[in-house]
Amino acid sequence: MDKMALVVIDVQKGLDEPRWGKRNNPGAEANIALLLSSWRREYLPIVHIKHCSKEPGSPLRPELPGNEFKEEARPLPGEKQFTKSVNSAFIGTGLEKYLRDNDISSLVMVGLTTDHCVSTSVRMAANLGFNVTLVSNATATFDRQGFDGAYYDADDIHTINLVSLQKEFCMVRTTAEVLQMVA
Amino acid sequence: MDKMALVVIDVQKGLDEPRWGKRNNPGAEANIALLLSSWRREYLPIVHIKHCSKEPGSPLRPELPGNEFKEEARPLPGEKQFTKSVNSAFIGTGLEKYLRDNDISSLVMVGLTTDHCVSTSVRMAANLGFNVTLVSNATATFDRQGFDGAYYDADDIHTINLVSLQKEFCMVRTTAEVLQMVA
Repeated sequence: MDKMALVVIDVQKGLDEPRWGKRNNPGAEANIALLLSSWRREYLPIVHIKHCSKEPGSPLRPELPGNEFKEEARPLPGEKQFTKSVNSAFIGTGLEKYLRDNDISSLVMVGLTTDHCVSTSVRMAANLGFNVTLVSNATATFDRQGFDGAYYDADDIHTINLVSLQKEFCMVRTTAEVLQMVA
Repeated sequence: MDKMALVVIDVQKGLDEPRWGKRNNPGAEANIALLLSSWRREYLPIVHIKHCSKEPGSPLRPELPGNEFKEEARPLPGEKQFTKSVNSAFIGTGLEKYLRDNDISSLVMVGLTTDHCVSTSVRMAANLGFNVTLVSNATATFDRQGFDGAYYDADDIHTINLVSLQKEFCMVRTTAEVLQMVA
């Protein structure tokens, strides 16, 4: 477990707005809170990623209340934070340099949403050479309409995105499995 | 259509080996050949990406015959090529610099596989600021076993990966739609 960082992606109030549609995995935030407690108890590194949208109308714009972290994922003083404006936590941020400067080569990644910012950040972390664990029930996504006009269920999107990431980019584990590793 | 580049990802013989499992969309290579003909006819830029695996046992290792481009996607002399060893065509390659040096801001992306190298390259292209079109029937993937042990169908994986990319990272179009734009 030496220097394994917990990377918490975009757990922000603006993602509770109805505009995003129906979400799966309502327990994701509670699992993230459990993981954060465990990391803090073990003095392991924690990195908080905040999305500061540049899109007109996005509730995640930096001047809006939706930009704030949710209670379950609020950083404590001294915990590292990076802000980003695209999906990948590695583009336009100092995340890669911070991890390398601190000899952190293993990441446990959680947050929102499974198929947009989490998947993109997991893929890029893996391709940059980091060893990644993705926590299946500490991430979630929303129903989406397809390019074919059909409606796709959040649970199906979540699961298949994990299937595509598993083994190629990361190991997919549950919160309980990760808590056991850290304890 | 000014300076819209066709980016062809990993259309290599080694991906025909049975080890990868059952594939969807057998017509992807024929569609890629049509797109290449159209790009050549209009003197638009073409970029070929070749995966040179460092994995022991991969048929895409540079010294193996599986590393070769398939006939349908063989570069012509003078067409730009980059080799990569991870999923993203932008990591460890000169692709981003080449595109910026040549004032290319729009990309049409095709190749193998939908959910691994294509999705990762599309996401990173979009996050780096390129305007991306992904051609739904000029890409394909394989059946995969999930982290839950269940078996997932290539067509379902393909479709849901496109759903996750659509509008957030790219516009998803068919080969026929793109050919019409270029003609």
